[in-house]
Amino acid sequence: MDVEKVFHMTGGVGKTSYAQNSSLQKKASDMVKHITMETIEELYYSIAPKSLGIADLGCSSGPNSLSLIKDIVEVVEETSHKLFHPLPEFRVYLNDLPTNDFNSVFKSLPDFYRDLKKDRNEGGPAIFIAGYPGSFYGRLFPNNCLHFIYSSYSLHWLSKVPPALYDEHGKSTNKGNVYISESSPPSVSQAYWNQFQEDFSLFLKSRSVEVVTGGRMVLILLGRIGQDHVDRGNSFFWEILSRSLAISVSQGQIDREKLDSYEVHFYAPSTNEIEDEVGREGSFEVDRLEMFEIDREAKDGESYGTAVAMTVRAIQESMICNHFGDGIDLDTLFNNYGKMVDEEMAKQN
Amino acid sequence: MDVEKVFHMTGGVGKTSYAQNSSLQKKASDMVKHITMETIEELYYSIAPKSLGIADLGCSSGPNSLSLIKDIVEVVEETSHKLFHPLPEFRVYLNDLPTNDFNSVFKSLPDFYRDLKKDRNEGGPAIFIAGYPGSFYGRLFPNNCLHFIYSSYSLHWLSKVPPALYDEHGKSTNKGNVYISESSPPSVSQAYWNQFQEDFSLFLKSRSVEVVTGGRMVLILLGRIGQDHVDRGNSFFWEILSRSLAISVSQGQIDREKLDSYEVHFYAPSTNEIEDEVGREGSFEVDRLEMFEIDREAKDGESYGTAVAMTVRAIQESMICNHFGDGIDLDTLFNNYGKMVDEEMAKQN
Repeated sequence: MDVEKVFHMTGGVGKTSYAQNSSLQKKASDMVKHITMETIEELYYSIAPKSLGIADLGCSSGPNSLSLIKDIVEVVEETSHKLFHPLPEFRVYLNDLPTNDFNSVFKSLPDFYRDLKKDRNEGGPAIFIAGYPGSFYGRLFPNNCLHFIYSSYSLHWLSKVPPALYDEHGKSTNKGNVYISESSPPSVSQAYWNQFQEDFSLFLKSRSVEVVTGGRMVLILLGRIGQDHVDRGNSFFWEILSRSLAISVSQGQIDREKLDSYEVHFYAPSTNEIEDEVGREGSFEVDRLEMFEIDREAKDGESYGTAVAMTVRAIQESMICNHFGDGIDLDTLFNNYGKMVDEEMAKQN
Repeated sequence: MDVEKVFHMTGGVGKTSYAQNSSLQKKASDMVKHITMETIEELYYSIAPKSLGIADLGCSSGPNSLSLIKDIVEVVEETSHKLFHPLPEFRVYLNDLPTNDFNSVFKSLPDFYRDLKKDRNEGGPAIFIAGYPGSFYGRLFPNNCLHFIYSSYSLHWLSKVPPALYDEHGKSTNKGNVYISESSPPSVSQAYWNQFQEDFSLFLKSRSVEVVTGGRMVLILLGRIGQDHVDRGNSFFWEILSRSLAISVSQGQIDREKLDSYEVHFYAPSTNEIEDEVGREGSFEVDRLEMFEIDREAKDGESYGTAVAMTVRAIQESMICNHFGDGIDLDTLFNNYGKMVDEEMAKQN
């Protein structure tokens, strides 16, 4: 499967869209917002460019895509004011895969620009927002054009399902699971880890050519606390997806073989792994590496399990539909998913 | 009506899409392709930048959007080869209104990049293609980032319907017509001309800040041969649209008042008018100004009138739907349109 041509957060603004089901991702960005803004401030103090290049890698669609930009503009306004500098020109590079719903991001731009200009003298900042579609595991932007690179909730997605998961006959060595689980052989976690190493170092190498000397990055991604791959953080939610898909198999909606061959293109690295990879690749230095835990709140009248199910659906629907075809009933699948999460949570309490 | 939020070529790849009904526009671009390519060549000889910025204003969606880029890359490859220069990095800025179907342009990018790399050594040119949504009647791009600006079949679209067409009660002074016609009072053509002047000079002023010294533009737009606004070139086709809409009124599909207030945001300048405006604004010099005539060929088994009707539908559907609402039957409207064009053509022969 060609991830670049298939994978996307569910577009539009409907009930199952990413736009409506990305409050968890927003919460995570908000939790580290102080780090992002401090980084921007330090960067501006040290370089103070006349034209500031900012990239958001994996911008997706929905309210999260542009809220960061507004915050950055405000911090730079304050900082340039303190320094008695004229406000720089802002070049904003929004990136995601070519299958992302850029149309809905672009349609919200006229209102975004209007709001930015409101209450500001001289017509507000000069800001040029563009969409740069493509995989961030490779070059995306011209040489030396960026001062600040941001990526939230994207780098845990691999460029592809690790090919080493499949044997010489193309059969998965991780049958019955969609990610590393208790029952996975050690070769499975090795295959995922190798794919992450390959992808993450290509990411760093590509960005190193695009960022100016002294530029900065803030990367927010899912990770795991210890060395064990099986935990309550990430693998638990993939485990529930495996079990939900198994119900669809038992109901005859999808073939057992289809499920056996389905694996997610995801990896949750540990902080050690990230540090080692950055060091090994050599283009960047780690300035600050923090692990934080986040939990989602359910909306009013909605169970915790349902909220998780909607989040997972918004990020997985494109891949599941592509792999399993039209026969699969997504409403039932994620209904089962939500119920199972609630049951597991009840057991823990 | 806010043109920026409504107007777009019909998206997607369906039967009534712009992608399927823009062969006329392609033919026009092809007719002046030698001028475009000579301009690129001259530009590269005189500046030879390491990083070449190219903008396509009004890129729309469909096959036309990217075919120009491929041609430009090839000419620059040849020219840099002749000069023993390394190939520059290409920065491509695709612009259209935020309502344009950028998604379908972006989805075709992976194949476009793959084709570019085919048969080329060293992985092909470094090319970074971005979407910059917004009105070109205002700033779009960072300062001094462009070497070449191209716009085909876009600058005859005004930023808005000229407000001066409406009297103090908001009633159109051009009732029964959607553009300048035989029966329009002189104030109507004056209103259109003033709007064109305002828009075109803002266009030139905005671009002058974005283009580097020595940069070049190629602009292709509809125009008129003489000073008379009413001719067989443009106003004729709007006249047929007025008459087709009048049939929809007589059939009770739309209100007479709705038709009276409908005017297109279009202007076909003469070569003198363009020359005068460029001179008056002062940022650019006219190097070459040519008028050419173009006629469309019908597809197999389709009448000439039907072909014209499909072209007009693909460019007008968004505005007509927004103004007249869902009650209007577009199939019937453009069926009538096509028949009337065929009848008029038969009269001439």
